[in-house]
Amino acid sequence: MIKETLSNKKKVSAELGFGNKNYNESVRFLNQDGTVNIKRKVSDKHVGFDVYHWLLSITWKQFIALVFVSYVVVNTLFALVYFSIGADKFGGLEVGTGSEKFSQLFFFSAQTLTTVGYGHIFPNSVFTSSVSAIESMLGLMGFALVTGLLYGRFSKPRADIQYSNEAVIAPYGDITGFMFRLANKKQNELIETECKLALAINNPETKRRDFHFLELERSQINFLPFTWTVVHPIDDKSPMYGITEKELHERDAEFVILIKSITDTYFQTVYSRMSYKPKEVVWNAKFVPMKQTPHKNGRISINIKDIHSYDKL
Amino acid sequence: MIKETLSNKKKVSAELGFGNKNYNESVRFLNQDGTVNIKRKVSDKHVGFDVYHWLLSITWKQFIALVFVSYVVVNTLFALVYFSIGADKFGGLEVGTGSEKFSQLFFFSAQTLTTVGYGHIFPNSVFTSSVSAIESMLGLMGFALVTGLLYGRFSKPRADIQYSNEAVIAPYGDITGFMFRLANKKQNELIETECKLALAINNPETKRRDFHFLELERSQINFLPFTWTVVHPIDDKSPMYGITEKELHERDAEFVILIKSITDTYFQTVYSRMSYKPKEVVWNAKFVPMKQTPHKNGRISINIKDIHSYDKL
Amino acid sequence: MIKETLSNKKKVSAELGFGNKNYNESVRFLNQDGTVNIKRKVSDKHVGFDVYHWLLSITWKQFIALVFVSYVVVNTLFALVYFSIGADKFGGLEVGTGSEKFSQLFFFSAQTLTTVGYGHIFPNSVFTSSVSAIESMLGLMGFALVTGLLYGRFSKPRADIQYSNEAVIAPYGDITGFMFRLANKKQNELIETECKLALAINNPETKRRDFHFLELERSQINFLPFTWTVVHPIDDKSPMYGITEKELHERDAEFVILIKSITDTYFQTVYSRMSYKPKEVVWNAKFVPMKQTPHKNGRISINIKDIHSYDKL
Amino acid sequence: MIKETLSNKKKVSAELGFGNKNYNESVRFLNQDGTVNIKRKVSDKHVGFDVYHWLLSITWKQFIALVFVSYVVVNTLFALVYFSIGADKFGGLEVGTGSEKFSQLFFFSAQTLTTVGYGHIFPNSVFTSSVSAIESMLGLMGFALVTGLLYGRFSKPRADIQYSNEAVIAPYGDITGFMFRLANKKQNELIETECKLALAINNPETKRRDFHFLELERSQINFLPFTWTVVHPIDDKSPMYGITEKELHERDAEFVILIKSITDTYFQTVYSRMSYKPKEVVWNAKFVPMKQTPHKNGRISINIKDIHSYDKL
Repeated sequence: MIKETLSNKKKVSAELGFGNKNYNESVRFLNQDGTVNIKRKVSDKHVGFDVYHWLLSITWKQFIALVFVSYVVVNTLFALVYFSIGADKFGGLEVGTGSEKFSQLFFFSAQTLTTVGYGHIFPNSVFTSSVSAIESMLGLMGFALVTGLLYGRFSKPRADIQYSNEAVIAPYGDITGFMFRLANKKQNELIETECKLALAINNPETKRRDFHFLELERSQINFLPFTWTVVHPIDDKSPMYGITEKELHERDAEFVILIKSITDTYFQTVYSRMSYKPKEVVWNAKFVPMKQTPHKNGRISINIKDIHSYDKL
Repeated sequence: MIKETLSNKKKVSAELGFGNKNYNESVRFLNQDGTVNIKRKVSDKHVGFDVYHWLLSITWKQFIALVFVSYVVVNTLFALVYFSIGADKFGGLEVGTGSEKFSQLFFFSAQTLTTVGYGHIFPNSVFTSSVSAIESMLGLMGFALVTGLLYGRFSKPRADIQYSNEAVIAPYGDITGFMFRLANKKQNELIETECKLALAINNPETKRRDFHFLELERSQINFLPFTWTVVHPIDDKSPMYGITEKELHERDAEFVILIKSITDTYFQTVYSRMSYKPKEVVWNAKFVPMKQTPHKNGRISINIKDIHSYDKL
Repeated sequence: MIKETLSNKKKVSAELGFGNKNYNESVRFLNQDGTVNIKRKVSDKHVGFDVYHWLLSITWKQFIALVFVSYVVVNTLFALVYFSIGADKFGGLEVGTGSEKFSQLFFFSAQTLTTVGYGHIFPNSVFTSSVSAIESMLGLMGFALVTGLLYGRFSKPRADIQYSNEAVIAPYGDITGFMFRLANKKQNELIETECKLALAINNPETKRRDFHFLELERSQINFLPFTWTVVHPIDDKSPMYGITEKELHERDAEFVILIKSITDTYFQTVYSRMSYKPKEVVWNAKFVPMKQTPHKNGRISINIKDIHSYDKL
Repeated sequence: MIKETLSNKKKVSAELGFGNKNYNESVRFLNQDGTVNIKRKVSDKHVGFDVYHWLLSITWKQFIALVFVSYVVVNTLFALVYFSIGADKFGGLEVGTGSEKFSQLFFFSAQTLTTVGYGHIFPNSVFTSSVSAIESMLGLMGFALVTGLLYGRFSKPRADIQYSNEAVIAPYGDITGFMFRLANKKQNELIETECKLALAINNPETKRRDFHFLELERSQINFLPFTWTVVHPIDDKSPMYGITEKELHERDAEFVILIKSITDTYFQTVYSRMSYKPKEVVWNAKFVPMKQTPHKNGRISINIKDIHSYDKL
């Protein structure tokens, strides 16, 4: 019996992929925003880095700043090349000081890179024409990458799921249950949403970290128009059976949530991850049912900020 | 026995994701065009809004109007900037009144934004050159977004399914069946089409709304070259067993249809939704078989408008 | 027993989606290139038409011709607009006859539509500037559609499967089997290839068309580096058990093949369809094993044209 | 019993898709980089060739060289056309020798192809205007293809999996196991990773090549934050039971690995393949557990180069 349980724990640990090493300090595998708290280095110094993934992950502010800085840097570099070839190899350049010429070449570069090409300044030697021919080609390709990324960021399928700030341990029939709520923050629909819930917890006997999948009352729903209260019934088969709030803290528990769904914008499969630590679990509380407001036109509306409300019992 | 049925109802309710709250007034979860009749607010005032999803959902007319208006607005704004910097900072501008100069700067802006850059007007100061360098970059990126959306709208995978206007309760073997028909409106093919049918209905005893999945004679077909008559046999295991037309109205029933399929244009998975209310269900009627017209070249043709035809019995 | 077989036939018929209507003349559901031999009209005159699907389906020649003709037509229309506004509203136009002016305006239009904008001709009135501002915007959006389609056609995932020209009825262990061969024509790899085989055949008793799924010795393979000989063993459970070549012709049989696979270029799921009619089935023949030529560098090569070879027994 | 084993071998062989022909010389089906060691010719001379797949598969260096060379070639061809029409059909051309004129026309072509169109040189005859109108259209479409490919290459979903250089035969409980390790090289996450392991081995009795799927201790994991040690336990049901290192070499074994996973960048399914030959299998060795370094911020880091470390026993 005990052996079976152990082998089951091992199984879940392996299945999740986190291993069951010793951990001397408190750890959190998943951050609340779903990112994984682990860094993989490919050498002593470098982290395995994926430019594409990074450019899709940075914030909009960072992305726009990056594009703008790159634009200025590239134009400066080309202006330097043009300037070193000689300002006299260009037609239409106004008479002026070196820095005035440089600034005009900088803007000529910008007009070439974006292919706007007004033409009041134009290259009139083989060398300057060659460099600008290369620049316009690079401009086309560079802007294609940037705009591809821009659109990729914009159209990236995502499950914009609002989880309740806290999970609760609430009465569930004759027993209690571990519960949390989730809802779709956006007006598009999520179809065939699936949930997996796992518990990572230190084992004081083996000094190792155990993993358990927690059985759910329901693990899939077809639609998600309102909220979904995911329930793990704490019956005598549950690894949480008999556990106390204090124990949950001492054994440094972590509830890991994996969501898989389909958005109906482009019918793409999306994933979402979250975790609750013991300080985010409220004992003996019950979620306040979501208020459904009917409208005259027959529509029903809910307010997603209500998802966090619970009553202490 | 009764308990089992109840728990089964609860199961379906949860599985569909609509909950089983009380509803005092008549509700319709799904509109006939498949949109969900529920609004999710993220605060008391605001609905969770997804720009991308919205830009893909609006009509072509709205989309084109939006693009056109944005184009005019952006050019006006840039023209204002150029004008405030000073028209004398541009080469090639014709002599004229202020409004004539403004209109020329407006068109200079348009020529910069689209990167057409004729060059008969051109910036000849650092400040105007800088603004136009930024404008041409923004133009490239803005038009990339617009054209990405344009193509995204154009190529969006969709199941263009024609449902029969009415469902019928027709003889089916020795019993009766709830039936509706569907067909692919387009000339591309739908592969591995699946159907789920659920019934939402008020329960006068519990004052709640029950949900039932209805068993189908067949829930998947490989091809959909003609029409598919989806049939729920009303046998003694059906939740519709013994129900009358009057009851269906009084208990505010709704037949919810979920279709999942694959289009052979790009082999993408697509979904379609629909619902019938009692007034869209015809009792004691039978669908008229679709006429298949053979052609000399060996092709067979059907006329999709025949899909709605039924005979009263 | 008989009833079971009948109900099974009905099941397959419905599952395939072709119905089991009477057919007085010989029919072919699938053409050898996998297109479906059925036309769906949305009215008495019109076929349900999907522009996007059509633009992806036409040949490259047709597509390029269409683009070229549209380019000429659009430029002609804009040239007409410019001409009717007046050639004097343009700067840089050379003196000449009306048709000379028209041709210059035609090329001005082309330079605007493609945003090349040389600028030796340029609009110098509000009206002509407005039209050209609209034209450059339309040009950006139109070319985005065209190039999106171009790339969409180019990158469209497809299973480029070579089927043997003929299927054979060959010895298979102690019995015989219906066999055909298929191979990947391209150098990319097809992963997890699945096959379904169905037989459509007239039933002289019921005067209807029956459908049977034929059991396969193997219905999925992980790789497809060489060829795959798909085998339906004709044992006593097969609907082909005891059938003669003559019967196959008289009952107007059709062997319908559905292939599902994943290409490793972008890991997309692709589908392929084919069918054999009785005249494409060779009785008492055996496929010649494919010659595998080892090379000095350790590679093995096969010649796909060998796939059609069989020996009469 | 023996027959069952044989039929099972045959089954696996067919399921993998490699056939079980005789091989006189040593073969390797999969190269270590996952490419398949088989060439499919569509005629005696030509290999089935997929331009799109090729353009996505070549290295970045080759791709950029190809783009650059094509750019030069296309401009040279158009310059030749313009030159043969006559340099006097252009405005803005400087007086000079034939080769000077040719170089100016070459750059005019580049300015047209990229739509930069400065306009200091411009076509001023119907013929030259027509050719440049076509060139700018081809330029838009050609660069769309190139930039589409560029972005396609950049955004191509891939499983960047680091496999241990060697597999080991290590103690596993009371028996031994065939083990190898794998990890995700990138900072994005791989979800629901699946593994299949097959053994291809010559059978000295039948003179044929047998295939066996090897049972895995675990064939799927939800996350891959650290490494995954894939284990085939060599129990008495394993086809490797009792095999010696010498036999593995003599019978020219190959361990074929198929990985299927989902990247969380765009939630796309990706595949990876690898194989170990006997010289890449170390007997009586054990992988060194990966060092997990905790950081002050709570993150844990691993160094992927440790994946290859093993200790001889």
